[in-house]
Amino acid sequence: MKRIVLVIEYRGTNYVGWQVQPNGVSVQEVLRAALKKLTGEDISLHASGRTDSGVHARAQVAHFDTESRIPADKFAFALNTYLPKDIRVKASFDAPSPDFHSRFSVRKKHYRYTVLNTLHDSAMSFDRALHIHYPLDLQKLNEAAALFLGEHDFAAFKAVGTKSATTVRTVYRAEWSREGDLLFFDVAGSGFLYNMVRIMVGTMLRIGMGYDDVSVIEKALSDPHRENAGDTAPAHGLTLWRVEYGEFDTEALLESNSLQKT
Amino acid sequence: MKRIVLVIEYRGTNYVGWQVQPNGVSVQEVLRAALKKLTGEDISLHASGRTDSGVHARAQVAHFDTESRIPADKFAFALNTYLPKDIRVKASFDAPSPDFHSRFSVRKKHYRYTVLNTLHDSAMSFDRALHIHYPLDLQKLNEAAALFLGEHDFAAFKAVGTKSATTVRTVYRAEWSREGDLLFFDVAGSGFLYNMVRIMVGTMLRIGMGYDDVSVIEKALSDPHRENAGDTAPAHGLTLWRVEYGEFDTEALLESNSLQKT
Repeated sequence: MKRIVLVIEYRGTNYVGWQVQPNGVSVQEVLRAALKKLTGEDISLHASGRTDSGVHARAQVAHFDTESRIPADKFAFALNTYLPKDIRVKASFDAPSPDFHSRFSVRKKHYRYTVLNTLHDSAMSFDRALHIHYPLDLQKLNEAAALFLGEHDFAAFKAVGTKSATTVRTVYRAEWSREGDLLFFDVAGSGFLYNMVRIMVGTMLRIGMGYDDVSVIEKALSDPHRENAGDTAPAHGLTLWRVEYGEFDTEALLESNSLQKT
Repeated sequence: MKRIVLVIEYRGTNYVGWQVQPNGVSVQEVLRAALKKLTGEDISLHASGRTDSGVHARAQVAHFDTESRIPADKFAFALNTYLPKDIRVKASFDAPSPDFHSRFSVRKKHYRYTVLNTLHDSAMSFDRALHIHYPLDLQKLNEAAALFLGEHDFAAFKAVGTKSATTVRTVYRAEWSREGDLLFFDVAGSGFLYNMVRIMVGTMLRIGMGYDDVSVIEKALSDPHRENAGDTAPAHGLTLWRVEYGEFDTEALLESNSLQKT
């Protein structure tokens, strides 16, 4: 028995999310079917966390145990021959320790939310960027984002009806940047509540459009009730960007996919 | 009667190309159906040129004549409400002259071919970039590309069985560049033969991988027969990037889509 770790990229558009659901195809079940073909085993696959329907992953992490003799680093190539093109394994390797766990060992997670700020939407990016045709003020967005930094009770930024032992989370990075007509919100934290990033974005976008003042966020953090925050931004703008563990960081693993001498 | 010009972006993945074909849905017929809904008229729509099945357009240009009283600049917004998300009209305006023609008035066309040069393909870009897992030499690619510059008989770079009055074309720009793991081939010319850019790319890629020497291109240009050039690179890496006319340039028109103050 050995424990293998995968770094997985997927386009969430055609999936009900990471987790198996009754109403459609999940990324997890497609990966399990590919693992079954490869190893003959019924494999339990554990991810760093769920992603919702339509949410993308640049670097999701998942682990599984197997009796297979396939060398750890060959799983990426072998699985990719069985997987659809919108799911790619970018790296596979032996777990750094026998008790490594994709979910419980996480130190930091990074998400990116992408907005296209133009008059007309784009035929190329409509499924990966939220189109906003009202001008967004980058400075206002960053004033709003800075308020999330540090430890707060994020209960106002959690989908109603979902459970968590605690709603206190630490945000290490919360920053908007611009490349041409695209705006990126990059956020890193110890962990995120259900829909937390999407509600943060929905709340900030109203501020960036000038409909609300940044005080909305101060209020939602000091009086943490869902109705004090804004709408949940659509799933298709969100990407699970990077996962950090004590033993490794997906960013370094993705670099091994590059063929460019730098 | 007035003549309207459209600048159109489309993702070619789900279409048989620009032109109406018996075996699937074309971009042209989807646009004509939207124009019919909007104006009630059966409209003839003329593009700057055809694009093949799977080829994308960042800025295709097309014109049509209509009796409609809708102001020219409103067509973009109105059509986008009827069009699928993978086709977007980015600008609409009155033709600069009554005899303006999207195809016959073209001065220069620009194409971009995109290659992803990594070990594993990407779940996000598999339908818009050709994946090459063998390291490509950017310098070799540019040595090859430079040979296309100027006026040549491009008969070796034309799909067999297609007709043209002349196979002589002028290439104004032919250049590879790199952004991270993506390689871009940008080419501009007076016009292009059928499959010309894709055969140029297929020929250069073998040189970039070290399988062929740049002399292959010298030979194919001096002894212009199809068998002297390389394979046709796949459609999905190709994008019609920009079209220039005496009176306007799509590049300037796309800028009007931006909401950013620069």
